[in-house]
Amino acid sequence: MTAHATDRSGTADGTAEARALAREWTAPPTTSLRWTPGARLTGIDPRSTPGWEGGKAGATALVAAHAPELSELQERLFAEGRSGGSRSMLLVLQGLDTAGKGGIVRHVVGLVDPQGVMHRSFGVPTAEEKAHGYLWRIRNALPRPGYIGVFDRSHYEQVLVVRVEGLEPRAEWEAHYDEMNAFEAEVAASGTRIVKVALVISRDEQKARLAERLERPDKHWKYNPGDIDTRLRWDDYVAAYQDMLDRTSTEVAPWHVVPADRKWFARLAVSELLLDALRSFDLGWPEADFDVEAEKRRLAAT
Amino acid sequence: MTAHATDRSGTADGTAEARALAREWTAPPTTSLRWTPGARLTGIDPRSTPGWEGGKAGATALVAAHAPELSELQERLFAEGRSGGSRSMLLVLQGLDTAGKGGIVRHVVGLVDPQGVMHRSFGVPTAEEKAHGYLWRIRNALPRPGYIGVFDRSHYEQVLVVRVEGLEPRAEWEAHYDEMNAFEAEVAASGTRIVKVALVISRDEQKARLAERLERPDKHWKYNPGDIDTRLRWDDYVAAYQDMLDRTSTEVAPWHVVPADRKWFARLAVSELLLDALRSFDLGWPEADFDVEAEKRRLAAT
Repeated sequence: MTAHATDRSGTADGTAEARALAREWTAPPTTSLRWTPGARLTGIDPRSTPGWEGGKAGATALVAAHAPELSELQERLFAEGRSGGSRSMLLVLQGLDTAGKGGIVRHVVGLVDPQGVMHRSFGVPTAEEKAHGYLWRIRNALPRPGYIGVFDRSHYEQVLVVRVEGLEPRAEWEAHYDEMNAFEAEVAASGTRIVKVALVISRDEQKARLAERLERPDKHWKYNPGDIDTRLRWDDYVAAYQDMLDRTSTEVAPWHVVPADRKWFARLAVSELLLDALRSFDLGWPEADFDVEAEKRRLAAT
Repeated sequence: MTAHATDRSGTADGTAEARALAREWTAPPTTSLRWTPGARLTGIDPRSTPGWEGGKAGATALVAAHAPELSELQERLFAEGRSGGSRSMLLVLQGLDTAGKGGIVRHVVGLVDPQGVMHRSFGVPTAEEKAHGYLWRIRNALPRPGYIGVFDRSHYEQVLVVRVEGLEPRAEWEAHYDEMNAFEAEVAASGTRIVKVALVISRDEQKARLAERLERPDKHWKYNPGDIDTRLRWDDYVAAYQDMLDRTSTEVAPWHVVPADRKWFARLAVSELLLDALRSFDLGWPEADFDVEAEKRRLAAT
């Protein structure tokens, strides 16, 4: 694999260990977590670990063992972007409140060089954003060549909160599914590999996590009374997620549904999906666009 | 110290270890590295470790031991920003090619949650940027409340490369020192704590690092033939740095000069300067702006 051809950072050992740990995948996460249109979202157990037999300890160990490769591939992607390449990566994270989107960013995205990450969290649109179409702020936040973009929530809010809260008439949000597919096809064609992840938690787990935010003064800032209002519309959100998954899981940008009651599994799953996507780029190091020997002589003369 | 009052992440132990390791500072880095206007930049040994007696092993250990506190204080700052606070942090990194700015971002800034970091690298201005004053793109990249902004190069390029390469007449760049001081005073008054770091390497170390970039195919992408041209103007750059330090090291935004031939020292120094700045905010956790008990009852009813 090219990823290790010029490796000098010791990932070769890490990879041997990683290969052993990765055998606990009985089916690769790209398969076991990929959404099958027509499947029932309510049929997914948020405490399950599809395809993974390695337990919590194995999961934590594999995330750590794959971190050097993840980090090196990110650097190769960045190097390619700096050398005229057009490819980039976009991780789209969706999930109900407390599903663990922030933890994924901290613990998985945090494994790679922050210089190569363009992170954007999408909240209620600002006045300026509202003055444009809903894809305007999304386009503005797309990763530049060589970068890993991370969307904490995304354009999909337009068929989730907007739909459930009735912020647009049905005819409008109904049109968004096709618009988003067209948009993502265009983004993918321009060189951006899109990895879409929907984190799924149970009602009970959400209750426990909200309770913890209320219990601990150092978590109060993460709590919003509106979270309860959203929680009361649980079934409406499940229906909206079901349609989103069915109607926007495409060949170029499929959804992955990640059971997230066990944070360690969600982090493993996203880490592995990112790694798979980076590996699929088959990244080398850019060729020098200068005469290496001539530059060595110039340097020696200084 | 408030930083540990509600600590639940195990930093208390880390801090005990950190306190022991930190005794190897014979003078705090905020003092030992702070620029004294009138000092001679050429009098600073790039291999020295001012104030630090702990060697490489101690430095690496202290960076790791302080990481949990750095990370927690960043989260408190972020929480404050999300709760209406106006404070933020700005790390300005300057240094000649190969001085290690990127390594600082990767290894020091990489210790905190990427969600709370706004990183920006300033290269040659784009056409749009050139159509505005040089501070326009700088203002646009300032950290929002709660964030740690990181500038890899900055407005100071306007008195470094612009001066040395003669891209502006003297009267113009001469005016920038006062403009920058006024700009930074305004930024500081708005709640942004500015930490300015100039990394200083020796000519020999730069030569060795450039040679390594030419030697290793996985580093070719970091090499630019223009680096040699810059290197040939070494003394001009030293003079420009000297004036920059003398004329823009102010009370609200002093310069710290960090000897950077030893990467482990530079990383320790910047990590400690950031930590000191975050500690000086005396960050608590935001008060709940809702009725905690009432919310507990609402949640229980769901």
